Amino acid sequence: MATKAIAIVAGVGPGTGAAVARKFGAAYPVVLLARNPENYEELVQEINKNGGKAIGISTDVSSEESVKAAFTKINQEYGNAPVAAAIFNASGRFVRKPLLEMSVEDFGAGWHVSVKGAFIFSQATLPGLLKHAEDSDAKHPPTLIFTGATASVKANAQMSGFASAKYGMRALSQSIAREFAPKGVHVAHAIIDGVIDIPRTKEWLKDQPAEAKIGADDIAESYWNLHLQSKRCFTNEIDIRPMLEKW
Amino acid sequence: MATKAIAIVAGVGPGTGAAVARKFGAAYPVVLLARNPENYEELVQEINKNGGKAIGISTDVSSEESVKAAFTKINQEYGNAPVAAAIFNASGRFVRKPLLEMSVEDFGAGWHVSVKGAFIFSQATLPGLLKHAEDSDAKHPPTLIFTGATASVKANAQMSGFASAKYGMRALSQSIAREFAPKGVHVAHAIIDGVIDIPRTKEWLKDQPAEAKIGADDIAESYWNLHLQSKRCFTNEIDIRPMLEKW
Amino acid sequence: MATKAIAIVAGVGPGTGAAVARKFGAAYPVVLLARNPENYEELVQEINKNGGKAIGISTDVSSEESVKAAFTKINQEYGNAPVAAAIFNASGRFVRKPLLEMSVEDFGAGWHVSVKGAFIFSQATLPGLLKHAEDSDAKHPPTLIFTGATASVKANAQMSGFASAKYGMRALSQSIAREFAPKGVHVAHAIIDGVIDIPRTKEWLKDQPAEAKIGADDIAESYWNLHLQSKRCFTNEIDIRPMLEKW
Amino acid sequence: MATKAIAIVAGVGPGTGAAVARKFGAAYPVVLLARNPENYEELVQEINKNGGKAIGISTDVSSEESVKAAFTKINQEYGNAPVAAAIFNASGRFVRKPLLEMSVEDFGAGWHVSVKGAFIFSQATLPGLLKHAEDSDAKHPPTLIFTGATASVKANAQMSGFASAKYGMRALSQSIAREFAPKGVHVAHAIIDGVIDIPRTKEWLKDQPAEAKIGADDIAESYWNLHLQSKRCFTNEIDIRPMLEKW
Repeated sequence: MATKAIAIVAGVGPGTGAAVARKFGAAYPVVLLARNPENYEELVQEINKNGGKAIGISTDVSSEESVKAAFTKINQEYGNAPVAAAIFNASGRFVRKPLLEMSVEDFGAGWHVSVKGAFIFSQATLPGLLKHAEDSDAKHPPTLIFTGATASVKANAQMSGFASAKYGMRALSQSIAREFAPKGVHVAHAIIDGVIDIPRTKEWLKDQPAEAKIGADDIAESYWNLHLQSKRCFTNEIDIRPMLEKW
Repeated sequence: MATKAIAIVAGVGPGTGAAVARKFGAAYPVVLLARNPENYEELVQEINKNGGKAIGISTDVSSEESVKAAFTKINQEYGNAPVAAAIFNASGRFVRKPLLEMSVEDFGAGWHVSVKGAFIFSQATLPGLLKHAEDSDAKHPPTLIFTGATASVKANAQMSGFASAKYGMRALSQSIAREFAPKGVHVAHAIIDGVIDIPRTKEWLKDQPAEAKIGADDIAESYWNLHLQSKRCFTNEIDIRPMLEKW
Repeated sequence: MATKAIAIVAGVGPGTGAAVARKFGAAYPVVLLARNPENYEELVQEINKNGGKAIGISTDVSSEESVKAAFTKINQEYGNAPVAAAIFNASGRFVRKPLLEMSVEDFGAGWHVSVKGAFIFSQATLPGLLKHAEDSDAKHPPTLIFTGATASVKANAQMSGFASAKYGMRALSQSIAREFAPKGVHVAHAIIDGVIDIPRTKEWLKDQPAEAKIGADDIAESYWNLHLQSKRCFTNEIDIRPMLEKW
Repeated sequence: MATKAIAIVAGVGPGTGAAVARKFGAAYPVVLLARNPENYEELVQEINKNGGKAIGISTDVSSEESVKAAFTKINQEYGNAPVAAAIFNASGRFVRKPLLEMSVEDFGAGWHVSVKGAFIFSQATLPGLLKHAEDSDAKHPPTLIFTGATASVKANAQMSGFASAKYGMRALSQSIAREFAPKGVHVAHAIIDGVIDIPRTKEWLKDQPAEAKIGADDIAESYWNLHLQSKRCFTNEIDIRPMLEKW
């Protein structure tokens, strides 16, 4: 089954990334990329145990070498398989600081992962996505999805590094969408506008009902539905917020 | 079955409206509104024949009286049923004219249907949508969807009437989304950016492959997927275009 | 001096309109339009006393007949003069109400003035603006400016009528800009994002410094600077807010 | 006159930068920054000869060290003078390439100058701008202006590096505007949407009239008018295009 299309998820943590990997892993052999193996090991086991197929690769998406090494492994494992879906969910270190107290390194941290990393990941996955686009048996158009945030469209005070990275990733997504849609690749950008319900945000909005946070599984469901869209109906951007979000 | 939730589609023609009615009609008893009965009669028969339940009502959405009369009939038929989904797909007369040659009536034609009509339709359906939001057995959050166009976000020359109506409808959608999301109603606006493949556009883009046009069924599928989103994941805006669209 | 270019300001009240009329009245014979003569009478006297030339005409911009009557008077007074600047500053009744409590008339009130009125005003002034564009002695390109608001780009809850009108006016402005720029007419839209310091808002933000509100004279200054822009540098949109505004 | 406020222009070339330096140099002692001294030497002489005061410093804005060295010189020359205006006009190497042929270095080239450079420049100038904001004798609020492009709001195919940098700079501008406006600093972003008429673009649009290009002097004029705005009227974004531009 070397030619069966695979899905690749970059930025697998305990939230959106894991949910997306689980969802796409139910349909495709799936590759989980994260810097820290702790972030994917359990999930890889879970998917494999449940009849799916998953591998995890420790990868720094901001490093071209690291990503190249990861794709060498992917190709060894899956034999240059076409890519049905590639989801970029990695995010740089979040820094909120008065501008005059922010170091150049702090400022750039977001860019190295969210923009440069997204570029490197796109270059690595697009050949496989194009291969899938040419496969007349492909069930759904190959899909490349980028996870954005409120800061993708609104740059608040003290968020210059984070917001400029998220704006930049959105531009990258739009540029790739315009270049590759005519070749059959569906590129989408998701503006996640709200707090995602993950272990790290457990204490946030505690006094509010569950509908004050975004469900990670619900994001995965929405990404999957983007993947199901036909070549005659590509959505290039969605926003996502919980019903109780102010916007 | 008086309390079973229903779906209401305004602006049923041979394209998006029919596809949406068919899709939602597979899950809910459905009401089809159009000025001209010719636009829904066959489809009503089709849905009823296939085991669904549909009624059509000749309605001018730009007239409060006409919409009130329609809802009196709906309530007679379905006994004040909660509304699971309401889709506003009506559009005013499209006028492309040099500004100085456009009559005030031409200019306002779009607004009367797309904005005032959307407002009247929203007022008529929101009580039923709210009722569904309070129903703990409801499968999916009640959904109110507005069909927009390229002109919802770009106002080209000679399109002042059409574009100002579409911008206005988008504002209405956003305002309602903000007011009713906390009450559990999911409001979404779709920017349909491209030519929809319907009988009327048969001769357009004839020399191009099928992927140059948007599939009406594909739009319906995307609307349905919006409806499936949970209260922890509301998408308030999507864009839709075929893979060969320039944007 | 029948052919000297004039300026026309619609929506003259005690705030922006008056300041704009004063500013443009220092350079051009000026026409002040408002429904209520009380809104322009004093100012007309002031401008005429200070060596300028001004006339006021009671006009309902939402009525084609009323605007036509006004332009008959303007032409009688100024002999079909070219129009150097036309500023649309009128705004419909502001209504903030829960959607389900808003009447169709309330909802439409904004549109009739801000969109239909802006359209009628544009049709009435564009021939004079085009005439000025063809005048090789014209000092500055003819300028048509629309006064928008925060609600031109953000539709908050309970503001559906106001916001859909402001969105619609913005679309109108963009469409006219695209059609008439190649003919030399400079069209601009101003997003006034904050409270303007006028008698009516005296009690608002009282505990805050003067920089919490927008100066009406400052808006007029900015509009004048838009007017000074050359044909090689048209700004089609500006935002304006006081330094203490949150956005 | 050590405390007289100065203006600083980064990215002085034969176009916008030079025009801006000339314009602000007529009112303030001015500092011209460019990597290549050829880009400012003549202009420095011109301004000094015409009764102004100018110095040029060879600076790489993408390097913190280089910018620090430049500001040491500025402080030596002008004695820690307050900064009345700082204009960031530098732009990274423009690369238009299919995504799969673009190197990571090509992709990042824009960011290093347009985003990281803009951040470093902002950090270097904001202390002087804040000093000017506190000076009650200051004629105009201190102004920090960023020069953007069409690609600041539209990311075309094959422009991923350039556009993601321009989007990122726009985010930076908005974030700084929000943080520093309450402290009296006016931050503005200009979307230059069209070809600027400079020696390098002489052969472009040759068959078209002068109004097909943007005048560099006209941009400078618009920037100056932004600088003149009061604390009760800050414009944070303008677009600029020539009258014959399609948009």
